[in-house]
Amino acid sequence: MDLKKMLADAHVKPYLLKARFGIEKEGQRVDLAGNLAETDHPECIAKRDEHPYIQRDFAETQMELITPICETLEDLFNYLSAIHDVAHLTMGKQEMLWPLSMPPQLPKKEEDIKIAKLKNFQSVLYRRSLSKSYGRRIQMISGIHFNFEFAEELIQTLFNLQSEFKNYRQFKTEIYLKVTRNYLHYQWFVTYFYGASPLSEKNFFDNDCLTKPVRSIRNSKYGYSNHDDVHVSYSSIEKYITDLTQMVEKGLLIEEKEFYSSVRLRGGRQVADLADHGVRYMELRNIDLNPFETIGISYEQAEFLHLFLLYMLWKDEGNHCDEWVKEGDALNEAVALEHPLSHTQLEQDANAIIKEMEQLAEALNLPVSDTLFANLKEMLQDPSKTLAGKLYQKSEESCQADLATSIAKENYKSAWDKPYQLTGFTDMELSTQILMSDAIQQGIKIEILDRQDQFLKLQFNDRIEYVKNGNMTSKDSYIATLIMENKTVTKKVLQQHGFRVPAGEEFNRIEQALRSYDMFSTKAFVVKPKSTNYGLGISIFKDGASREDYEEAIKIAFQEDSSVLVEEFLSGTEYRFFVLDDKVLAILLRTPANVEGDGKRTIEELVAEKNRDPLRGRDHRTPLEVIQLGEIEKLMLKAQGHKIDSIPKNGETVYLRENSNVSTGGDSIDVTDQISDDYKKIAVDAVAALGAKISGIDLIIEDITVPASDKGAYGIIEANFNPSMYMHIYPYKGEGRRVTTDILRYVFPEIN
Amino acid sequence: MDLKKMLADAHVKPYLLKARFGIEKEGQRVDLAGNLAETDHPECIAKRDEHPYIQRDFAETQMELITPICETLEDLFNYLSAIHDVAHLTMGKQEMLWPLSMPPQLPKKEEDIKIAKLKNFQSVLYRRSLSKSYGRRIQMISGIHFNFEFAEELIQTLFNLQSEFKNYRQFKTEIYLKVTRNYLHYQWFVTYFYGASPLSEKNFFDNDCLTKPVRSIRNSKYGYSNHDDVHVSYSSIEKYITDLTQMVEKGLLIEEKEFYSSVRLRGGRQVADLADHGVRYMELRNIDLNPFETIGISYEQAEFLHLFLLYMLWKDEGNHCDEWVKEGDALNEAVALEHPLSHTQLEQDANAIIKEMEQLAEALNLPVSDTLFANLKEMLQDPSKTLAGKLYQKSEESCQADLATSIAKENYKSAWDKPYQLTGFTDMELSTQILMSDAIQQGIKIEILDRQDQFLKLQFNDRIEYVKNGNMTSKDSYIATLIMENKTVTKKVLQQHGFRVPAGEEFNRIEQALRSYDMFSTKAFVVKPKSTNYGLGISIFKDGASREDYEEAIKIAFQEDSSVLVEEFLSGTEYRFFVLDDKVLAILLRTPANVEGDGKRTIEELVAEKNRDPLRGRDHRTPLEVIQLGEIEKLMLKAQGHKIDSIPKNGETVYLRENSNVSTGGDSIDVTDQISDDYKKIAVDAVAALGAKISGIDLIIEDITVPASDKGAYGIIEANFNPSMYMHIYPYKGEGRRVTTDILRYVFPEIN
Repeated sequence: MDLKKMLADAHVKPYLLKARFGIEKEGQRVDLAGNLAETDHPECIAKRDEHPYIQRDFAETQMELITPICETLEDLFNYLSAIHDVAHLTMGKQEMLWPLSMPPQLPKKEEDIKIAKLKNFQSVLYRRSLSKSYGRRIQMISGIHFNFEFAEELIQTLFNLQSEFKNYRQFKTEIYLKVTRNYLHYQWFVTYFYGASPLSEKNFFDNDCLTKPVRSIRNSKYGYSNHDDVHVSYSSIEKYITDLTQMVEKGLLIEEKEFYSSVRLRGGRQVADLADHGVRYMELRNIDLNPFETIGISYEQAEFLHLFLLYMLWKDEGNHCDEWVKEGDALNEAVALEHPLSHTQLEQDANAIIKEMEQLAEALNLPVSDTLFANLKEMLQDPSKTLAGKLYQKSEESCQADLATSIAKENYKSAWDKPYQLTGFTDMELSTQILMSDAIQQGIKIEILDRQDQFLKLQFNDRIEYVKNGNMTSKDSYIATLIMENKTVTKKVLQQHGFRVPAGEEFNRIEQALRSYDMFSTKAFVVKPKSTNYGLGISIFKDGASREDYEEAIKIAFQEDSSVLVEEFLSGTEYRFFVLDDKVLAILLRTPANVEGDGKRTIEELVAEKNRDPLRGRDHRTPLEVIQLGEIEKLMLKAQGHKIDSIPKNGETVYLRENSNVSTGGDSIDVTDQISDDYKKIAVDAVAALGAKISGIDLIIEDITVPASDKGAYGIIEANFNPSMYMHIYPYKGEGRRVTTDILRYVFPEIN
Repeated sequence: MDLKKMLADAHVKPYLLKARFGIEKEGQRVDLAGNLAETDHPECIAKRDEHPYIQRDFAETQMELITPICETLEDLFNYLSAIHDVAHLTMGKQEMLWPLSMPPQLPKKEEDIKIAKLKNFQSVLYRRSLSKSYGRRIQMISGIHFNFEFAEELIQTLFNLQSEFKNYRQFKTEIYLKVTRNYLHYQWFVTYFYGASPLSEKNFFDNDCLTKPVRSIRNSKYGYSNHDDVHVSYSSIEKYITDLTQMVEKGLLIEEKEFYSSVRLRGGRQVADLADHGVRYMELRNIDLNPFETIGISYEQAEFLHLFLLYMLWKDEGNHCDEWVKEGDALNEAVALEHPLSHTQLEQDANAIIKEMEQLAEALNLPVSDTLFANLKEMLQDPSKTLAGKLYQKSEESCQADLATSIAKENYKSAWDKPYQLTGFTDMELSTQILMSDAIQQGIKIEILDRQDQFLKLQFNDRIEYVKNGNMTSKDSYIATLIMENKTVTKKVLQQHGFRVPAGEEFNRIEQALRSYDMFSTKAFVVKPKSTNYGLGISIFKDGASREDYEEAIKIAFQEDSSVLVEEFLSGTEYRFFVLDDKVLAILLRTPANVEGDGKRTIEELVAEKNRDPLRGRDHRTPLEVIQLGEIEKLMLKAQGHKIDSIPKNGETVYLRENSNVSTGGDSIDVTDQISDDYKKIAVDAVAALGAKISGIDLIIEDITVPASDKGAYGIIEANFNPSMYMHIYPYKGEGRRVTTDILRYVFPEIN
């Protein structure tokens, strides 16, 4: 079986880089001073031991972030970044994540390291046994587990190219065994470049057994490693299983998962399943946290690992496979314990490997980042460029703990800077980002079915719900949304249910409309084309109109549409009620773009000041939009006798827009608690009349202190079937209402 | 109270013509020879005595068509026309409606006239009493009841202009009383122009009591009239009620509704309610069927009645109101019994009235049809132009019965000519027209909320359902339709549920797509932009592709969209499965536009012949579209070595299109019974997987004789949330499946 030849086959080519990836990343929670957190794992994610995204590892302080299985590295990094954001938001503002594999200063007494307070007693028992076998300190080391699976199509195509194996599962297992043996032999290569645990903090070592800096404590005998008499063969899957089972039976391992190899072969839930199902994927466990990356690993590193695993598949292995692996252990131990700034004793071998990988990439026409090989070469020539080298050198400037604390704080800041954003998914709509953040926190699995279309598949246990745009769900009927989509129909349905809507007439002939002048002449009314399009053709008469003006308005409207509405103009303030399942969750008042004078600064300066708010941005990427100073704003200022360099009086509010849309710089003000229950009941009943479950319904209220039952107290303008949610969550003023969480609880009542 | 002045007030003007209308139209069912039908009222509408649209009057053969209350005469006529269509379709092809007020030849024995077989025994008893009082023959006369209500705004505005009445309800009642008294005084005017019962048929009169032709038997003492001692005063509502009640108490009337005045005042359910609620509207009962209109009344007639009622409101009445009414009775009797071709004795008065009405219309600036007054004048000058005159004259040519039979047949033909159309609503989508037709038949009340948007409100008893486009209902969830709307999401969901969909890859970068050539090179596949737009940028390779062709196809697709799909091409035949509530109701095979040769005619001739089918039309106004002979068709012919004047061999099928859309002249063939249950189960299960209740799902099947469980036996292309229904109902070949009825039964299970 000539894998080198097979990998170069044209049939294999399209699938060469197809793979599936997953990451588990551990990290210690610390307070803002960099001390190990004394708090428990956050309650809202602690509800479930088996949270799909955020769990605890050995200790209560040790967070483990878990990505879903991803088809691309882009996806993998998006998810890992997002889960990091959620971890930060969930820990709250008093905690952050320690960026190093080596833990921060540990408590003097080992028993003060708290074992994870899991619900499952078996899991707690296991951790207690680990404490006994290895001590709690060593278990506080964190790292990254990189799960990797070749694409099924790749293995299938390779299988078809050979005749040695008749059984596909056996072939597949052999593929993974070969890669594993080679990886174990060459793992020192990874340790050299990406090892990143040169120093330990106080109270890590019982005695000062390791006095000099190294490349990777974690990957050395001082880190996570089994007792010397644990040996497992990778010669065949049967041998691997038998060895592991025996180790457990002999009591050398508490459980199979205590086997701390740099590679773990994965199949079913336990090792014995490998015999039945074969190897499904492999787990690389020798990756130290990269302190210079917010998420603990760089994209280039992941790309390298992918390429390296392909190379391990391609490369011939030693004849005696157990020896081959054993040699690898020794080489790795040697490199791990080298000084971080020293050249490695295996420099020549490393050079050869880089060259060979480069050739392989070229031969197979694999797309690789431009910098990958250049960086490897540079790190090889200059050990201070390796992760361990860099970390050690920077730590020398003050100390590793201070460095780690300041890195943690940077990461903390960037997570809290724009809490409305979910890193990795910032191209999606804000409301969807926030809903996804909530879903990750609640442990609801997310699959993005169509990214541009904001189409999510959510799963909790076995139940699936699809959600689009954050609020389009299985709970609303199609017809209810169609009713809301059609303003005329909405009005008719509400009117028939006894709600006040603007009275009006629809005209299909201009003469018919003109004849009706006297119906409106002295009233406040609006003339508009039935299908409004960016406000074209709309005329508003707040105090009646002359016959000439009326005729003019009718003619203008008929230029836009063959149907024209003349509607009562409702005076008062417009409020947006967010209604979910017969409850008003939030009420928002929107005001046009404005600044408040201080008697000193110009309007331009006041606008610039207001725009500095991190909530303000452009193109709906933030909860509020910056205030513009364009033509429309200048005209509006002019009408009030202002220019952009006018200095408004102290306390004077200057409006820059007539319309109150948030999208043109308007302010959003939460007034949920200020509006009395009778208006909330109107909103709830109106949404129910439309047959809807989720709606943003707009009420005009003249005076909120007047009872809703008074004649003309309110009027309903429209109901929105896709109401903005982020504006309620991050209002300009007032309390944020996290309606996305309510949506999730509504579609998944079982999460409560 | 100067009503003349009040009506001229500017405030009144916009509301002058606002009113509400309703029509009840009786008519006898006859067979195609014009003989009184011997069948029962059609079963599907006989289920309910109180059917909102189609009931029985006195006799089992006497259909009463009832419009809903309408705000405009246009609406009124649309509904009446539609209900006529439905009445025809419901009676079936062996019956038609007699177009005259006077019944066709009656059975010799009076007891052979069958009283309506109503479920309500009270109603049957009432009819038996009528038989005793008046005889059954007289009850067989039919006519139109015209319900009229002034707009509330009109009466309210008039009320505001006076001070005589303090109580609005009293004022409103007085308005109707005045109009009624005047109408009764001047009813002869209506009888002259629109009376249309000059002759009776055999066995109508017991003895030949009326030997000469008249203007209106129905409006004379020979028609529907109470016994001489029935007198009711219109001087006040109290008097009116007391008189009526007394008549019943004395046994002169069986029930209040037996009072056969030309005007009935309407309030609540019974006359006594008038005391509490006042008069709400009035019912004109003296309108003979207009035999020259399919629906028994012309638009101009209705317009006249509206104007005449306004005139009656405007016109001063006589001082002694009971006398005034009594005089009217006498005048009407005189005019009704005039010879239909003679000038009326009241010609001068009539002239004066026309002139005054004309002046009124001008003074109040009322829009009136150009022809209305001209026609009245002409009819006054030339009695042969009146309805009675025309009918009499035409009857003289052969006999009235033959004339009526041939008119009935014309009406019958036009109803059956395009059974897929619902007259009055032909601007709406076909499927909606058919659904409305079904709703009328099932007695489900229809309100059109938005006509252009095909938005209906349906009501059965107290339950309301909204339906848009005939199949968008409350039964489907919003998210299910969104899943179906998004082809990518549909595919993913179906795939995750184990259904076969075209395998494929989505590419966002051109290089990535080009690299994947080997994945498809030898397969049948399609390259297409993710968002397809009229087929732009799609390339199909049925037998693999060269690298150059593949690259070209990828580039073309990327010109249309930033995402490109390369998808497996499924070979086989595409079938549309119409699924409703977990059942397959219909399966359609669509074939491209084609003609079958006869060895004699040219393609052009064959196309012309095929296009003659009344099912074929243009712009989706018919179930099938005409076959074009444009550029595309000519190119297609050329590719087969044909021209439009080629003569295909006998039995040869020549295709004029590649695509099988019905909209480009394709044929639709019902194959519901030919497809085996296992494929139907696939369709049902797939729709269920999408969470949908109503869907048109497209399956590609290679060979329908092969079990669906065979590998690759089928593939699902897409699911449509707004599937065309009319193509299943009126296919080109095969059995029509009236899926609209199933939709109605689904949203209103209680109608069964």
